[in-house]
Amino acid sequence: MPDSAVRDHLHREVLQSDDSYGLLPEFVSQVHDALEAGDEDTVRELVAPLHYADIADLIETLSPEDRDRFVRATKAAFNAEILPELDDAVRAEIIEELGFEDFAACLREVESDDAVYLAGQLEDEEERAAVLAKLPPELRSVIEQALALPEYSAGRLMQRELVAVPSYWTVGETIDYLRSGARLPDEFYQIFIVDPRHRPVGYVRLSSLLRSRRPVRLNQIMDLKAAEIPITMDQEEVAFIFRQQNLLSAPVVDASGRLVGRITVDDVVDVIDEEAEDDMFRLAGLSEGDLFSDVVDTVKSRITWLLVNLGTAVLASLVIGVFESTLQAVVALAVLMPIVASMGGNAGTQTLTIAVRALATKELTAANAGRIVSKELVIGLINGVVFAVLTGAVSWVWFGDGMIGVVIGAAMVINMIAAALAGIAIPLVLDRLKVDPAVSSGVFLTTVTDVVGFFAFLGLAAVFIL
Amino acid sequence: MPDSAVRDHLHREVLQSDDSYGLLPEFVSQVHDALEAGDEDTVRELVAPLHYADIADLIETLSPEDRDRFVRATKAAFNAEILPELDDAVRAEIIEELGFEDFAACLREVESDDAVYLAGQLEDEEERAAVLAKLPPELRSVIEQALALPEYSAGRLMQRELVAVPSYWTVGETIDYLRSGARLPDEFYQIFIVDPRHRPVGYVRLSSLLRSRRPVRLNQIMDLKAAEIPITMDQEEVAFIFRQQNLLSAPVVDASGRLVGRITVDDVVDVIDEEAEDDMFRLAGLSEGDLFSDVVDTVKSRITWLLVNLGTAVLASLVIGVFESTLQAVVALAVLMPIVASMGGNAGTQTLTIAVRALATKELTAANAGRIVSKELVIGLINGVVFAVLTGAVSWVWFGDGMIGVVIGAAMVINMIAAALAGIAIPLVLDRLKVDPAVSSGVFLTTVTDVVGFFAFLGLAAVFIL
Repeated sequence: MPDSAVRDHLHREVLQSDDSYGLLPEFVSQVHDALEAGDEDTVRELVAPLHYADIADLIETLSPEDRDRFVRATKAAFNAEILPELDDAVRAEIIEELGFEDFAACLREVESDDAVYLAGQLEDEEERAAVLAKLPPELRSVIEQALALPEYSAGRLMQRELVAVPSYWTVGETIDYLRSGARLPDEFYQIFIVDPRHRPVGYVRLSSLLRSRRPVRLNQIMDLKAAEIPITMDQEEVAFIFRQQNLLSAPVVDASGRLVGRITVDDVVDVIDEEAEDDMFRLAGLSEGDLFSDVVDTVKSRITWLLVNLGTAVLASLVIGVFESTLQAVVALAVLMPIVASMGGNAGTQTLTIAVRALATKELTAANAGRIVSKELVIGLINGVVFAVLTGAVSWVWFGDGMIGVVIGAAMVINMIAAALAGIAIPLVLDRLKVDPAVSSGVFLTTVTDVVGFFAFLGLAAVFIL
Repeated sequence: MPDSAVRDHLHREVLQSDDSYGLLPEFVSQVHDALEAGDEDTVRELVAPLHYADIADLIETLSPEDRDRFVRATKAAFNAEILPELDDAVRAEIIEELGFEDFAACLREVESDDAVYLAGQLEDEEERAAVLAKLPPELRSVIEQALALPEYSAGRLMQRELVAVPSYWTVGETIDYLRSGARLPDEFYQIFIVDPRHRPVGYVRLSSLLRSRRPVRLNQIMDLKAAEIPITMDQEEVAFIFRQQNLLSAPVVDASGRLVGRITVDDVVDVIDEEAEDDMFRLAGLSEGDLFSDVVDTVKSRITWLLVNLGTAVLASLVIGVFESTLQAVVALAVLMPIVASMGGNAGTQTLTIAVRALATKELTAANAGRIVSKELVIGLINGVVFAVLTGAVSWVWFGDGMIGVVIGAAMVINMIAAALAGIAIPLVLDRLKVDPAVSSGVFLTTVTDVVGFFAFLGLAAVFIL
């Protein structure tokens, strides 16, 4: 296979360096130069050997002008598989540049779950209707039905193409059916076994089917279904079940229990990945990944949380303002006070992050919350004592005043315990109130640790030093 | 199948509430009560219908004393599959309670990749040798070979059991071989095609095999390999390739290119999940998830970063100390100064988190770093101007002094730009230096935003207000 050897070689040239997979910067420059020179043939030749996911990465890496040029150069043979792999902001640009006609052609090319996903990305109702109008009626109705389901539900993730047969069939009959060229999906990993009402009862692994002799009945080699996914189930719940049970594929059922689709693990990998990423972003005060968004959209999405933070910072300042006369008298307090607040914030963030993640992975539940809260309080106390001694000693030496050391030490113990309590209690309470703990926990936490930190330190100082 | 119907029903009772999958607290209490009463039969009956991953969750949820009791109650028929699903700290407890003999029995039960993983968890060399001594020679040598490879390498993740056949075989010959009962893995998703030197050249999907007639040769229906994984490749790199190319399974090759194993997507799902989780933890100053660690281990793992943070907080205090006389003269500065530092810290953390994640997902590369840095600087400038106006106005009204408003506004612009620059540049530089940007970026960032924030605000005040 000389042809494939060449492709393989090219693939390596472009993508591999030192055991690390990724586009080489030199390759990206080559594409950029060809785009700028308007040399569309070279562009097409350069990307021909790439996997569609790598082309998606390439498009993301290009500047917005180059992206438009790239679409124009490859429009005639634009690989539809690229679209689902793109970042949302970049995809919107590409769809605009493609136009409705070519975008509709892309929807026809990809599998039904991807078509649903892509059509769902068009937020403008009119645009969506215009694109759907260009699709064959069957695909159109599949997409419309799926889009009527809640966003992020199993029904949006699933593929409708699947292989389902009754349990009384033999291995031979099944293989003959598969070979008959009946309308079957391109790729499938298991065969679903359904009862006469088309409800899933189990599945046969393809490896079991291949290893069994023709007269064997499927009910002798089938496994009972591990899980069945209701069509309205939230995708995070679906991802949890896949991860938990190491599933490759699971049947999706409608309200009456009939098999209507399948979800495969490759769709779920993206959900799992996004879930941890989303929590990470939310904890940092980001509503979403915005690496490829333009400046205006990025500022818009980031400013909300900064405004909230301004509110809490002003609140902390109001607390400090209460002690203006104390600060006037002992200016050393102004120098030291950020230490108490900062240590509380950091220790609290550690606890908070553990709690938010454990809630997402269902490791922290009503059944063990009590034990975890006690543990965090003990840790807060230990941290408080350790850092009380350290900061107390540093402050004493620095300002030559033992009382300042005692006051900062006492404030440190108080704030570390407050931080531990807030770090674990805030996400638990938000979760109980059905609010995503990752979104707002951080603000509440730093409010607590700033206010308690400043108040304890300056308040104790006002009483014991003045 | 009445039996399975009962199991299914039980499964639902225990695990499902409102479309949400997870152990019901009432169920956990039931198990706890039975454990406390020493009623081992009831314990075994209660957990019998559960999936092994749910039993792992149950064990994690129990208190340490209950865990020991649970192991004693189920020891005779302890399901080895539970072990890989457990949190590290909990697993160490369980292994201790099981003892070497029963732990070795577990290693014999699980698949080779899980056995390697579990044996690798024993950190004490002597303990590990004692357990390995109890294994059959073949399994022992598989584990020893794998453990000789670097931790977190592809060789540790892979399974050695696979199906590999030459490309000139027909579909019929292949099916006959599979049916012959030759030593084959329990489950496989594709058949690898190898050349005479046992190097992988492609693969046949089981669905393609099933749909083709017996005389068809495999080279007519095979797909070229999408990727081949060197045995020493880091697991994060492996996970990236799987995600990128939506792979279900990939061949692993040794230095001479020979097929030595396969990695399947279910192993990689865990790596993908851990990767995002690790970055999230590291950004919060956590070295690892410690929900189930005891207090001593938790304090040990968390205190390092708090100590580093104390250092940076003291550094910031030193900067404030330089301006003691300024603060003495205008105490309002002490009230306002945390606002400048806090806003810089938060805006910087947004940028930092985006950058750390984008480096991990390879969306931020040398090819687009310049553009992203420019964008973040523009955003820093915009944020600076917006929050300069807001805080300037608030400060002016609060203290009735326009100059304070001007100074805090100017300091805000400076610190927001510094935050944007630090937020993007620090992770880029650390990455270039081959240091994990998630681990230490946060400390550097807050050092920059605290120092620049306090210095700019108090320095400008010293010049323009005094």
